[in-house]
Amino acid sequence: MQDNPHLTKKIELVEKVLSKNDKEAIRVREFFDAHGILGLNFMSSPGSGKTTILEQLALKKSFRFNVIEGDLETENDANKLRKRGIEAVQIQTGSACHLDAFMISEAMQKLSFEEIEVCVIENIGNLVCPASYDVGTHYNIVLLSVTEGDDKVEKYPVMFKNADLILVSKCDLIEHFDFDPELVLQRAKKLNPHVEILQISSKSGEGIEALSSWICARRRKK
Amino acid sequence: MQDNPHLTKKIELVEKVLSKNDKEAIRVREFFDAHGILGLNFMSSPGSGKTTILEQLALKKSFRFNVIEGDLETENDANKLRKRGIEAVQIQTGSACHLDAFMISEAMQKLSFEEIEVCVIENIGNLVCPASYDVGTHYNIVLLSVTEGDDKVEKYPVMFKNADLILVSKCDLIEHFDFDPELVLQRAKKLNPHVEILQISSKSGEGIEALSSWICARRRKK
Repeated sequence: MQDNPHLTKKIELVEKVLSKNDKEAIRVREFFDAHGILGLNFMSSPGSGKTTILEQLALKKSFRFNVIEGDLETENDANKLRKRGIEAVQIQTGSACHLDAFMISEAMQKLSFEEIEVCVIENIGNLVCPASYDVGTHYNIVLLSVTEGDDKVEKYPVMFKNADLILVSKCDLIEHFDFDPELVLQRAKKLNPHVEILQISSKSGEGIEALSSWICARRRKK
Repeated sequence: MQDNPHLTKKIELVEKVLSKNDKEAIRVREFFDAHGILGLNFMSSPGSGKTTILEQLALKKSFRFNVIEGDLETENDANKLRKRGIEAVQIQTGSACHLDAFMISEAMQKLSFEEIEVCVIENIGNLVCPASYDVGTHYNIVLLSVTEGDDKVEKYPVMFKNADLILVSKCDLIEHFDFDPELVLQRAKKLNPHVEILQISSKSGEGIEALSSWICARRRKK
């Protein structure tokens, strides 16, 4: 693609934007660290089940968390979580394909952190762009539903290279799909040897306890 | 979001890039028109079934087509289509989240169009960014699998506003999901009154004939 002048120019511009974003992300993380907050960035394709899993975590009450929701439009996801007693701020990006650290800083001003142990950022449903933008969290949790196919790790390597934990979601449906979680783990470990994997289903409840424990083990000191 | 200087700057940059892209897209469309080729842009989230549906169309042989495949990495999808006798070029974008008209121009040089009636562009699996970039095709076909949820039209309006045809894919699984195709159509028509919808399943074969007819009816004169 070296001969595409359009792309070269665009890459330069994106690099400039990223450098500013990285500085703001450091400020977000400093805030989290100063307040004993664990920051988690939930990413996936649209409809992989991010919000539903957060609703399950809200019901479990193993840790106290708030949520920054990202969508192009609608306040649906924030409303779902508020119904479960979770404080949530909705960011509507219009046409922007990812959240950035500036959006997070702004949204954080609308949340209280005194009683909170974990701040979850539910990123825009997009398996590409959010992976390139540090939003100031400590860990990236990437969902991949069995309905999407086990070939997605190789096809979207930027996302899976940056994942700390992969949640294989909708695993109650695994019998209907040609999906091998072991293959996902093998492929992901080639990109990042430290990545972990959990199978999860908000329908059957499988994996919710394990995810909750994974998060609890990483909580900061208040 | 007016106070986010990072975003304002980014929007300006994206607008500049878009304007160059639009000019190149016009050139691509002129080529298609001059050669009697119908250009189709297939877009969806990752794993909604774009390639599998193209494989089904290849088996049907109702029209002669070639394919430009977009992925961040791997040549898997182009290889699948080649096995079905379809000439396919794979674009690997690295980390870029959409195809643009310059990439299409370059890829087209590797294809022969003499015997071809339809050129299909299978865009990057991403329900956000590809919607904003004209790639020089005549129609946008957007897949939404029943596994993703019927709320996606409202959450990703840019994509559905630009759709000419929505394919509700994996419809053989509809009984397992709380998914209402009628609601999808209602919501999509609010964004674009001319949009059409078809239910499709590459497993059961439902809708393949209807999609094939939809495409055949729009072929250009050679």
